[in-house]
Amino acid sequence: SGLVHVKNPHLDSMEEDILYHLDLGTKTHNLPAMFGDIKFVCVGGSPNRMRAFAQFMHKELGLPGDEEDLADICAGTDRYAMYRAGPVLSISHGMGIPSISIMLHELIKLLHHAKCRDVTIIRIGTSGGLGIKAGSVVITDTALDSSFRPRFEQVVLDDVVVRSTELDRDLAEELLACSTEIPDFPTLIGHTMCTYDFYEGQGRLDGALCSFSSEKKLEYLRRAYDAGVRNIEMESTAFAALCRLCGLRGESSRSRFRVL
Amino acid sequence: SGLVHVKNPHLDSMEEDILYHLDLGTKTHNLPAMFGDIKFVCVGGSPNRMRAFAQFMHKELGLPGDEEDLADICAGTDRYAMYRAGPVLSISHGMGIPSISIMLHELIKLLHHAKCRDVTIIRIGTSGGLGIKAGSVVITDTALDSSFRPRFEQVVLDDVVVRSTELDRDLAEELLACSTEIPDFPTLIGHTMCTYDFYEGQGRLDGALCSFSSEKKLEYLRRAYDAGVRNIEMESTAFAALCRLCGLRGESSRSRFRVL
Repeated sequence: SGLVHVKNPHLDSMEEDILYHLDLGTKTHNLPAMFGDIKFVCVGGSPNRMRAFAQFMHKELGLPGDEEDLADICAGTDRYAMYRAGPVLSISHGMGIPSISIMLHELIKLLHHAKCRDVTIIRIGTSGGLGIKAGSVVITDTALDSSFRPRFEQVVLDDVVVRSTELDRDLAEELLACSTEIPDFPTLIGHTMCTYDFYEGQGRLDGALCSFSSEKKLEYLRRAYDAGVRNIEMESTAFAALCRLCGLRGESSRSRFRVL
Repeated sequence: SGLVHVKNPHLDSMEEDILYHLDLGTKTHNLPAMFGDIKFVCVGGSPNRMRAFAQFMHKELGLPGDEEDLADICAGTDRYAMYRAGPVLSISHGMGIPSISIMLHELIKLLHHAKCRDVTIIRIGTSGGLGIKAGSVVITDTALDSSFRPRFEQVVLDDVVVRSTELDRDLAEELLACSTEIPDFPTLIGHTMCTYDFYEGQGRLDGALCSFSSEKKLEYLRRAYDAGVRNIEMESTAFAALCRLCGLRGESSRSRFRVL
């Protein structure tokens, strides 16, 4: 049917669903009228960048009105920012798995309540590249954890549930095809490693704590490269797991930003 | 000596230390002049709230100038916001362990470079309360993980290192003593549980996914209560572990916000 699935039998019996961190709700907002025609959702860490992206889309799509006037749909909260440009929704998610998870739970419910169909979600942003040219875009086929396993461990109450982190292969190929139309736009499909920590978890030597040598760091990154990792960031496993479970066609596509 | 410790032998040999997510650095900013006299750091999730807190401190301390004019010291980035009011620094950290960890690594290096002494750090904010009166403030003695263990598991490269999550007991008692001076300010010392997820991880029935019954949720929360948990949030274990390792006198004090 192309609808977004929620997998929660309790929702049906709730009189009102409040999307706390988006400052939206089923009683206070007409979600089908506001969002029913959304076809693409693009998410990224920084609120300023996601506003700039919505403004860019507004211009690219030739929409009426000044893109400078785009209003933050979640203006009542500073947890996340949300803008729309035609059929495209652009939302920030902050940094790390817990932060993107809260946003995705509420976004998925929003798309469900709004009765959206055939939604494609793409995570865009920067990442640390591994053995690839600076400026390259990595389109993720599978997200890996810090032990290079294609899985996301979700704690449900105090049980651990293991979820798959494969992303939509057809969408990855479509995005790769788009990149070939643009000159000097180095793009590749590869695995993305997702960590819970930016400093000790990604082998950085410049955190407040560092207990490993430069050699140990390089040995770890080499093992990651050999496992197919081409970039490292902090949200892709949770993103892949949640999109997959809820029937969202999802992709994570990030440019290489910093040499690790 | 009261100085803030960094535990990273690589830092000494670096020509410049860039605190990426704070938009500050040792070559671009005179950190001892800007921050050398800081004695208190208060951190919380939301940037707007941490600005409001700095404005409140500015007024309380009777500092000269209009508190409305307080400028965001990290204005060059939208990752975090930072304000100062006399000896008090007020910083936002976003939601979840990965987000607060990035901020704390860079804050600890900032305090180290600025040669600050005898710094007390207090995490303030809202949380879900367990079996306590609405509006109560919980001062954390020990942060627990989702299995009620007083530990934080940090992935370092692909090893797991276990760190203690005990907070400063004297500081907790001092804060509790302060609360008795204010009428109708219900305050207690207790354990705080820290989860990686807001919905499935905290027993909420209103996420996009929910595979457990209301009974199972209550049974889990009862077990948490019996283990000494009085509130639940998403940052305390990483906060406690990092403060402890780096010689910061730390406390986490949060009001009960929502009935779970």
